[in-house]
Amino acid sequence: MSAYQSLRGIASEVALITSTESVLGWDQETYMPEKALGHRAQQLSYLSGKAHGLLTASRTRKLLERAEAEEPENERQKANVQGLRRLIDRATKLPQRFVEEEKRVTTRAKAVWAEARRQSDFSRFAPKLEMILGLARRKAELLGYDDEPYDALLDLYERDAKTREVAALFAKMRPQLAAIARAAVARSKELKPGVLKGRYPCKQQQILNREIAESLGYDFGAGRIDTTAHPFCATLGPGDVRLTTRYDETKFLSSLFGVMHEAGHGLYEQGLPGCDYGLPGGSAASLGIHESQSRLWENHVGRSRLFWTKWLPRAQELFPHLKKVKLDAFMQAILGSEFSFIRVEADEATYDLHILLRFGLERRLVRGALDVKDVPRVWNEEYRELFGRTPPDDRHGCLQDIHWSMGGLGYFATYTLGNINAAQLFAAARRQRNVAAGLERSDYAPLLKWLRENVHAHGAALTPTRIMQQATGRPADPKWHIAHLRERYLG
Amino acid sequence: MSAYQSLRGIASEVALITSTESVLGWDQETYMPEKALGHRAQQLSYLSGKAHGLLTASRTRKLLERAEAEEPENERQKANVQGLRRLIDRATKLPQRFVEEEKRVTTRAKAVWAEARRQSDFSRFAPKLEMILGLARRKAELLGYDDEPYDALLDLYERDAKTREVAALFAKMRPQLAAIARAAVARSKELKPGVLKGRYPCKQQQILNREIAESLGYDFGAGRIDTTAHPFCATLGPGDVRLTTRYDETKFLSSLFGVMHEAGHGLYEQGLPGCDYGLPGGSAASLGIHESQSRLWENHVGRSRLFWTKWLPRAQELFPHLKKVKLDAFMQAILGSEFSFIRVEADEATYDLHILLRFGLERRLVRGALDVKDVPRVWNEEYRELFGRTPPDDRHGCLQDIHWSMGGLGYFATYTLGNINAAQLFAAARRQRNVAAGLERSDYAPLLKWLRENVHAHGAALTPTRIMQQATGRPADPKWHIAHLRERYLG
Repeated sequence: MSAYQSLRGIASEVALITSTESVLGWDQETYMPEKALGHRAQQLSYLSGKAHGLLTASRTRKLLERAEAEEPENERQKANVQGLRRLIDRATKLPQRFVEEEKRVTTRAKAVWAEARRQSDFSRFAPKLEMILGLARRKAELLGYDDEPYDALLDLYERDAKTREVAALFAKMRPQLAAIARAAVARSKELKPGVLKGRYPCKQQQILNREIAESLGYDFGAGRIDTTAHPFCATLGPGDVRLTTRYDETKFLSSLFGVMHEAGHGLYEQGLPGCDYGLPGGSAASLGIHESQSRLWENHVGRSRLFWTKWLPRAQELFPHLKKVKLDAFMQAILGSEFSFIRVEADEATYDLHILLRFGLERRLVRGALDVKDVPRVWNEEYRELFGRTPPDDRHGCLQDIHWSMGGLGYFATYTLGNINAAQLFAAARRQRNVAAGLERSDYAPLLKWLRENVHAHGAALTPTRIMQQATGRPADPKWHIAHLRERYLG
Repeated sequence: MSAYQSLRGIASEVALITSTESVLGWDQETYMPEKALGHRAQQLSYLSGKAHGLLTASRTRKLLERAEAEEPENERQKANVQGLRRLIDRATKLPQRFVEEEKRVTTRAKAVWAEARRQSDFSRFAPKLEMILGLARRKAELLGYDDEPYDALLDLYERDAKTREVAALFAKMRPQLAAIARAAVARSKELKPGVLKGRYPCKQQQILNREIAESLGYDFGAGRIDTTAHPFCATLGPGDVRLTTRYDETKFLSSLFGVMHEAGHGLYEQGLPGCDYGLPGGSAASLGIHESQSRLWENHVGRSRLFWTKWLPRAQELFPHLKKVKLDAFMQAILGSEFSFIRVEADEATYDLHILLRFGLERRLVRGALDVKDVPRVWNEEYRELFGRTPPDDRHGCLQDIHWSMGGLGYFATYTLGNINAAQLFAAARRQRNVAAGLERSDYAPLLKWLRENVHAHGAALTPTRIMQQATGRPADPKWHIAHLRERYLG
């Protein structure tokens, strides 16, 4: 057996453990009773430690060196070995105790955050955030960085991204985004309100969500949709990619777009090469690429007029009071824009501003330029500056997102990177005649096939930069995203 | 640190792994999508192997020897060391590869069985049963036995039970049970049918199930109820004991008694000493004791007139068409008896006959006196002999139970042993004035307290025999069970 084959064996074993962690994590968010939390934190910490121990064992490192010395059989093997080098080097920089502690702290912090959010009381969460921030800083020091500690965290989610470059990109986009948002919100105020008012029974929403997710190509034989406070997509193993959503019986679009968004993530995961499961070639390239898939399906497909030409009649069957709503009015209602306090409820025209706020704030937190205790005040000030009003409480402000409680500092920027990638990929895909023709007849298979071939099939065997370059012929550039927003919201 | 403390540490680590297996197993039965099965089998097999490896490692065995040489601090420590000796010796007899293979085969066999049952086609399941039988025989040889291989399997579920003694007990009970069943069924034929006819909406059933489970003392903060094809109770960790049931909107009692049964198991698990979690002192004594708890709450409490004096009015609120039903008529309907093809739907008066059939058949299978291919024929013949009619198909015959597909040969006898223990324990508990008084006013706390102290608190620190002796002053004897059936069904 070649060293590469043996190394693959170890990677599979690591994947057995990490996918088991995913089952435990999914259960924690969906069905786990509250008193199970302490033991669950121990289980997760134990498994994290085991996976880490395996990945960093001297036998693994020796096999990696031998695999690097072997002549690769193909490009994929070469990419897998390089990717494993990156993962193993990174893991080796983190002591096992650190990994276990991080998992234990964040598993418990999620519950504390949820309670603090329920009570809208940041002071309850602050001590945990302090711990998590301490862990994040230690992690950055352990991993190393060029310019500033935030680089090390950002790189965990977006390979090769540099804080300074992202900050410059966001600074350049900010005035454009702010102008689009202001104009879109102003224009929406002129719309007739209440067009979609009515009751949308949960069961009927579930029927529509499922039909639409299936029509996009999401495989329910290898997935399902459950209900959680926050929608997410989780991969529990090959053949097991699950989505979640939530329901509000006064509106159906929030749950539906949530499902389309998560289904976008799910389609990517279901499309990763199964033969490389557990290896870089069978894993997502980055969160910026992941998010491009969710945004593409949610926004570019799901919020388009073409999409609703097909699906509004079906929605009218399920929700008969919609029968009086014409497509034009429906589209105006869908594309109405407002300054929401809550990021996950924000529309496209205002969404990125939420990210800019978080990115800047996180960067200062990690750098030590902002104290945890000042987060609510600074959040509210920044929000007011961007959106012109102040969140009424912490639940609608700095306590709204789960990310910090999960230890996900460095994560937020990938949402806007995803928006940029989504617009650019969708524009490239639509230049294919069969993709455009498919969309005309509400057949999403050609689009999915294009994404499978140009994005999914590469896994992390290509860098995000290479994926964007190869798929679109250009490096990632916000101009498609800005143009898309202008056309849709100001056009 | 004493050797005992170190050994406890290893037992905790094993429990982290096995409880993770429980989460994976629970998910497999409740929510896992079908295409996840292959990977799930690998995860379970991997974890089983890891737990087994840890339990049988030479370091563990050396610590055990040193712990045995230490002066125990108390009786509990002594019992834990003895129990670990038993577990570790048993595990050491089974090679890790065998354990992994067994888990892989049975995880997949469950899905094959479910499909065969759906199709009512035993021939689809037969090859898997052949494999499982082969594994069971190999296991018996590896574990060793005195009289016959079945002893080794039975002992896995019912500590110290001997096949020959169980067979003698069942042979002695058989004519009594058959006479009771015949008379009960004959008497039920005279009853007015259709008293409980009507629609029982699932949501309303769930309300009643939950209220009743709570009133027995089941803690929903550390548990939940989900829906599965077959009801079960699973412990996923301390503070995490989950029940499942199923719903039929034409009747509510089947789901409710299912919940009371599983809640009985759940109360036992929730009552095991948390300080000894992962050790014998914090684990169930045997399945015969476990089943005594489920039967006690389901049958002795749940099917009693006293119980329905309190709960019929509540049921009538939830299901208004029951308002016309008087308590006498309701009790007659509940206690009606018939020869069901399906064990889990059988009433108390006929239930044990189902067990006698399975026990005899399994024993012959394991001994090699019965071929897998002849199972449907022999099942149907035996059924006819006991119940006077022939199952219409395999789904209503030898394919109805999940046990064989899980590798659970040796399991069935514990149901009747549980019935025997339940009647004897309930009789002893009712001799306590406060327990009897509690039941009179539908307060189940004194009964639960008595069970906690006399059964739950011991975990497996006492043998099933000792538990019965200490709790009731007598060794287990079927006379209370037989007397209970006579009084309830022929009285």
